[in-house]
Amino acid sequence: MKDTDKKISIAVIKRLPKYLRYLLELMERGIVRTSSQELSSLTGFTASQIRQDLNNFGGFGQQGYGYNVEELYNEIKKILGLDTTYQMIVVGAGNLGHALTNNLSFKRSGFEIIALFDVDEKLIGTEIRGIKIYHVSEMKDFIANHQVDIGVITSPKSVAPEIADQLVEYGVEGIWNFSPVDLRLPGSVMIENVHLSDSLMTLAYKLNWYRQVSGWTNG
Amino acid sequence: MKDTDKKISIAVIKRLPKYLRYLLELMERGIVRTSSQELSSLTGFTASQIRQDLNNFGGFGQQGYGYNVEELYNEIKKILGLDTTYQMIVVGAGNLGHALTNNLSFKRSGFEIIALFDVDEKLIGTEIRGIKIYHVSEMKDFIANHQVDIGVITSPKSVAPEIADQLVEYGVEGIWNFSPVDLRLPGSVMIENVHLSDSLMTLAYKLNWYRQVSGWTNG
Repeated sequence: MKDTDKKISIAVIKRLPKYLRYLLELMERGIVRTSSQELSSLTGFTASQIRQDLNNFGGFGQQGYGYNVEELYNEIKKILGLDTTYQMIVVGAGNLGHALTNNLSFKRSGFEIIALFDVDEKLIGTEIRGIKIYHVSEMKDFIANHQVDIGVITSPKSVAPEIADQLVEYGVEGIWNFSPVDLRLPGSVMIENVHLSDSLMTLAYKLNWYRQVSGWTNG
Repeated sequence: MKDTDKKISIAVIKRLPKYLRYLLELMERGIVRTSSQELSSLTGFTASQIRQDLNNFGGFGQQGYGYNVEELYNEIKKILGLDTTYQMIVVGAGNLGHALTNNLSFKRSGFEIIALFDVDEKLIGTEIRGIKIYHVSEMKDFIANHQVDIGVITSPKSVAPEIADQLVEYGVEGIWNFSPVDLRLPGSVMIENVHLSDSLMTLAYKLNWYRQVSGWTNG
């Protein structure tokens, strides 16, 4: 049975990149074996949670031996689909588009930005790290002529739904959305939203809660 | 009993900003009452999940009447601690720092960036939307002389742990971390990580899984 024949819960999947980060750190330190206890102290998950998570993928880990770091790393990469590469285009070449394009860690993980799109005439034709910025009107042709796996939406909120619809119409199957709207797309399109405000509000809650229980008063 | 006397599970808290987004949308459309069914079709959560979530905060919603949109909006804002304002500083004035500073929706939600810090001499003394960029060596004095609730870390990974330690030492209680490291901080410091690579890897998993179940082959 292939790993992918079985759908693993998305809660487990969302924890896997964190395992990956720490396994890479262990590999870089030359460590060959690890344990659920060690992974627990690194990741902050409980050892029993870790054993449960890793059991999802079959026969890792042996009583009294632990996990082979590199084997586990490669297996998790495979499960996440990171044993292949993904080509991405970024729609919206403002500061956020620039920041994502300049982030070299994505490329190291197999995600390559191959073009940006914008409507700002001052940007069209310029490059970031050698990656060209096109006018959004050229998006259809570009997608027809390149393998584009993921469309990254960093545009203003007002045009995000229209851009998403276009990406889908032109055949893009994955959307990484930074715009603060929940896009309605066909079930065949995979979407991952990064709602920065939501994260900030969660932080405000934690802060506010902590201040109240610890007797801090805000003015 | 105050709402904040009871700690609500973080899973519920993380859903509240989404309710807030849609309640604001309803208010802007002039809608006064809503139901768990309507909220379900907007948010994608089940109606029973919604009733359960909102029951956490006491007596909202009445059988056959539903929820008063504005009342619910204000109550959720209060629960999230958004009935007050938070002052933030951004450490790292690169593209991501610029993008966050240019994002006006944070200010509308009560989060105000009051200064940026960097080590790049070309940036020191310049401004973004009238907000000044200082040298990181000025951070201690700045924090001593201003109310700083949240430190936003948009620096390179290599210096992020050091910056976090400094922020904590100078008295900042909330950290919004964009650097791809899990910071180890005292329990009295509230932290929210935005690990963009984790989100991208989750998307890759969904995409890869969907392609396999739908018979698509990559190459």
